[in-house]
Amino acid sequence: MLESLNNNKKLLPEQVSEQIIRLITDRQLKAGDKLPNEFDMAQQLSVGRGTIREAIKILVSRNIVEIRRGCGTFVCDHPGMIDDPLGFRFMKDKGKLALDLCEVRMIIEPEIAALAAERATEEEIEELEKVAKEVEVLCEQELQHMEKDIEFHGLIAKCSKNTVMPNIIPVIQSGISIFINITEYSLTQETIRTHRMILNAIKNHDPQEARAAMIEHLESNREKIKTIIA
Amino acid sequence: MLESLNNNKKLLPEQVSEQIIRLITDRQLKAGDKLPNEFDMAQQLSVGRGTIREAIKILVSRNIVEIRRGCGTFVCDHPGMIDDPLGFRFMKDKGKLALDLCEVRMIIEPEIAALAAERATEEEIEELEKVAKEVEVLCEQELQHMEKDIEFHGLIAKCSKNTVMPNIIPVIQSGISIFINITEYSLTQETIRTHRMILNAIKNHDPQEARAAMIEHLESNREKIKTIIA
Repeated sequence: MLESLNNNKKLLPEQVSEQIIRLITDRQLKAGDKLPNEFDMAQQLSVGRGTIREAIKILVSRNIVEIRRGCGTFVCDHPGMIDDPLGFRFMKDKGKLALDLCEVRMIIEPEIAALAAERATEEEIEELEKVAKEVEVLCEQELQHMEKDIEFHGLIAKCSKNTVMPNIIPVIQSGISIFINITEYSLTQETIRTHRMILNAIKNHDPQEARAAMIEHLESNREKIKTIIA
Repeated sequence: MLESLNNNKKLLPEQVSEQIIRLITDRQLKAGDKLPNEFDMAQQLSVGRGTIREAIKILVSRNIVEIRRGCGTFVCDHPGMIDDPLGFRFMKDKGKLALDLCEVRMIIEPEIAALAAERATEEEIEELEKVAKEVEVLCEQELQHMEKDIEFHGLIAKCSKNTVMPNIIPVIQSGISIFINITEYSLTQETIRTHRMILNAIKNHDPQEARAAMIEHLESNREKIKTIIA
């Protein structure tokens, strides 16, 4: 923690922000845990309080810590996960981006569904069933169901027991929905039908069926997106 | 651009940083393009220059713009792509993380190799051949070849013509190598052999062979990582 600050080209607040990250990971601070106060950190890292404040601002903008006024500085939920972490909004051709994201989903999600069918616990399946039902209710009321839909696919990723998948899937899925809004009734009926197929396959712990159902689901999505772009 | 700043809970510099992002995307500014100066931006967005400076700091910490002293503020290469965008360093069990990342690679990269075999141009194949050779030279001299290795796999992702893959692959691959250093000679021989297989399959535009070669390559990597963790 107290290593020399001099042999580095980065600006001081940037360097100090890296040291605070190491403090968080070394002490295994979790989401919601409080950081030492400004005064203590300034002493520990042998820098001024102004530098600590600048470093904290950097960490806030990276969604690593949050400041609760009058309380102190805390580790964020999902620390380090920022909006649009792969820089999608800076890509020029949004239509191509949407189709490329469909291609990525078609590669990853059928395999995730298969892993989920192999590895999901009974509690996770109950949770998945609950969220699937919530998507259906929103669809039937013709309300915006995008966020719930992302939650459904994120839960399947969680059922895979792969710790990275729940971080990747929402990024890919919301990347598509930033640019394209798919809420037409024709597709929501298709969403309900194919979500049920995926859910049943996972409930039956049938990886092949889960893979096939996810492929059908994603293909109907992709067809819709293609017609919207064209 | 000049929409009201008031109906939003975010702090002012945060809001202004979002407006500057919109300015970059609306004007289609590319990597290396210069932003308007502080004074002009302050006028356009009807805020003080101090707020512009704070907003720019946020964008610097998100790797969207960089300040070149005495020159001005410029759009970064790969804007919005930060180090560790999926927050891997905050995950507790690094051994499990490394194996989970191997699982993700095993799902994505064989398909990318197959797409690359279908879609790579002759120029891209020449470039791939050059980088493969550079990896081999480093391996033979028993030098650190990790960065070149990431470049090789990133190039294959580029050959796939999917614009998202070149952003995902380096994140996944460097996530593994942050925690585990695989440079032992036994594996580098295996790396040279399987890289050649992948390269030849892409040269021959043979997707099945490319997929199979990538699986063999990743499997030898995963076996090595498993023994290191155990």
